[in-house]
Amino acid sequence: MSLQTNAMAEAIELARHARLDTAPNPRVGCVLLDERGGVIGRGATQAVGGPHAEVMALRDAQAKGLSVIGATAFVTLEPCSHHGRTGPCCDALAAAGVRKVVASLADPNPLVSGQGFERLRAAGIDVEIGPGAEEARELNLGFFSRMIRKTPWVRLKVAASLDGKTALPDGTSQWITSEAARADGHAWRARAGAVLTGVGTVLEDDPRLDVRLAETPRQPPLVVVDSQLQTPPAARIFEPARPVWIYAAAPDAAAQAALEARGATVRYLPNPHSKVDLAAVLRDLAAREVNELHVEAGHKLNGSLLREGLVDELLLYLAPKLMGDGLGIANQPHAAGALTRLDQALALEFKSFEGLGPDLRIVARIAGRDRF
Amino acid sequence: MSLQTNAMAEAIELARHARLDTAPNPRVGCVLLDERGGVIGRGATQAVGGPHAEVMALRDAQAKGLSVIGATAFVTLEPCSHHGRTGPCCDALAAAGVRKVVASLADPNPLVSGQGFERLRAAGIDVEIGPGAEEARELNLGFFSRMIRKTPWVRLKVAASLDGKTALPDGTSQWITSEAARADGHAWRARAGAVLTGVGTVLEDDPRLDVRLAETPRQPPLVVVDSQLQTPPAARIFEPARPVWIYAAAPDAAAQAALEARGATVRYLPNPHSKVDLAAVLRDLAAREVNELHVEAGHKLNGSLLREGLVDELLLYLAPKLMGDGLGIANQPHAAGALTRLDQALALEFKSFEGLGPDLRIVARIAGRDRF
Repeated sequence: MSLQTNAMAEAIELARHARLDTAPNPRVGCVLLDERGGVIGRGATQAVGGPHAEVMALRDAQAKGLSVIGATAFVTLEPCSHHGRTGPCCDALAAAGVRKVVASLADPNPLVSGQGFERLRAAGIDVEIGPGAEEARELNLGFFSRMIRKTPWVRLKVAASLDGKTALPDGTSQWITSEAARADGHAWRARAGAVLTGVGTVLEDDPRLDVRLAETPRQPPLVVVDSQLQTPPAARIFEPARPVWIYAAAPDAAAQAALEARGATVRYLPNPHSKVDLAAVLRDLAAREVNELHVEAGHKLNGSLLREGLVDELLLYLAPKLMGDGLGIANQPHAAGALTRLDQALALEFKSFEGLGPDLRIVARIAGRDRF
Repeated sequence: MSLQTNAMAEAIELARHARLDTAPNPRVGCVLLDERGGVIGRGATQAVGGPHAEVMALRDAQAKGLSVIGATAFVTLEPCSHHGRTGPCCDALAAAGVRKVVASLADPNPLVSGQGFERLRAAGIDVEIGPGAEEARELNLGFFSRMIRKTPWVRLKVAASLDGKTALPDGTSQWITSEAARADGHAWRARAGAVLTGVGTVLEDDPRLDVRLAETPRQPPLVVVDSQLQTPPAARIFEPARPVWIYAAAPDAAAQAALEARGATVRYLPNPHSKVDLAAVLRDLAAREVNELHVEAGHKLNGSLLREGLVDELLLYLAPKLMGDGLGIANQPHAAGALTRLDQALALEFKSFEGLGPDLRIVARIAGRDRF
């Protein structure tokens, strides 16, 4: 039992290490134990189109000249049963002579969930489901959200003073937090399937919004919410090599052409108020295979996203300073409109606190948002 | 050396345990080691008028029938050399035959600092100064502040939402944080020499501002800043048995008489703007032997105290909720007036973070305020 617990913990750690690599696929790890409990292979899902964790673990054993006949595979997600970008992992496990599969979770995709386990059992392989389920799901909340809710997991990043101010009254916000906090923020950008901002931030700060202060194998696409297509074609967001997806409300052929000339893709998703339909944007981003969406915007767009119930968690960096004046974290974040009772406040749950240089990082989840 | 380190750590722990008891005296602990390094006595300073830590430790050894001849005394502050409320500890240590005294710190009172060490040396006792100095000073920042700066150490307690709101727009603030956070707040009230609030809080919330949710040997005096003597004689602050000190700006004999009839003491300390002179209040509280002042007030008085440079640290409880609307932590906390540059923000340093039930407690110190 302890060997099994260790093997699954190691599989989860392999998945965690692959967190920047696997999108849009889930972060999955696999550990193979021989019949005496010795580790004979390890693997994690590779970049899209590459092998899944199970195949990587089988190859690892093979490369070491170790037999996997009779082995047990510990894998953090149900092995796939379909021919997608790669062959079915179930078949590879069966062909290699694996005797048992311990999987943390069923595949969240309702179209295939359980089929992998069936295929394994049909091949005479023992199947056990459950160990490591909580950690494996937490690591793949974005993938689970996209599969089940058809929207990404939305993480709102905010840097604020201790009294909740994100910018001077004139909008100046560079920099409230330290380089240590900003570098940590870039690491969170790196793990996201896309980074989203509003045209207000583009116009006021002219940021790049790419990953520079942390290592990354790729730059996530940038999403701009820009109802009137006001993004300047000369904006610095076009400097990094990555997709830029602009969502607008009012068609403007000239502006669109100028932005497309800079490599952007423009889509029109208006709501009845001639603004961008934010819920539709999220659905569209899920269709574009974004699992985790990292939002860095101003207090107005933050407020709209929160008010419309589209945010899942806050990634909040608090600097040890008091500003008094300035713009807040989010305008009217609660659906109640103007707040008249304390119980109308938007309820969250703290997930973690961590000091980063002089600053404090708080991860807080909108209460109940991870139950889907 | 390790025995010495342990003995001083234990002396500091004894002092910490006495933190609710010793005011206005400093929190001091004493451990006596015999010549082989065994602990033969322990003591902490008692309530005002009672024995100091050294005498308590000597009595402890005596009660156990152990000789202290040749012993080493580890004490977290310089032993007193003067006849105050009790006899000089130096004489007691010398009379008992103690051979050596290891003290963390010299007495901060400039009138007596060093005299204890001189008196010990004159009695033939070895003196070593320094071990545990940082912890011993930290535990007695209030006493050191009163002795050196002639003002209390001022701790501002604030309960806020994650976006820095302390009340609804109409002032309602009960309750933003949880019972766990409120109980912790009462424990901090209990260790203070006095609790200070503004008449605005009395009028809006009618609080008791006493210690109910934590154990305490006494109720700290309550201080009200009330320029126009608007405190209602029927206010609940008069319910607990404790001194109530009201500071006003404009004399009003009738209001004063009504408040004095409720047991309050009224003092007039006006500034040139017909408000209460807050710096003068702090000096007066130091003269009243308040070491640590615990402030629970609204955003206006908080802002005034911060703006005038009178606050030393923040005790901030953050609830995991977003309010959007509402009153802030402190109006214009920085001396610059309206903020036009980020570097004008009031700089603090985080001292600690701790989860309390669903909430987060942050202790943050105004940068540099503990260097005096």
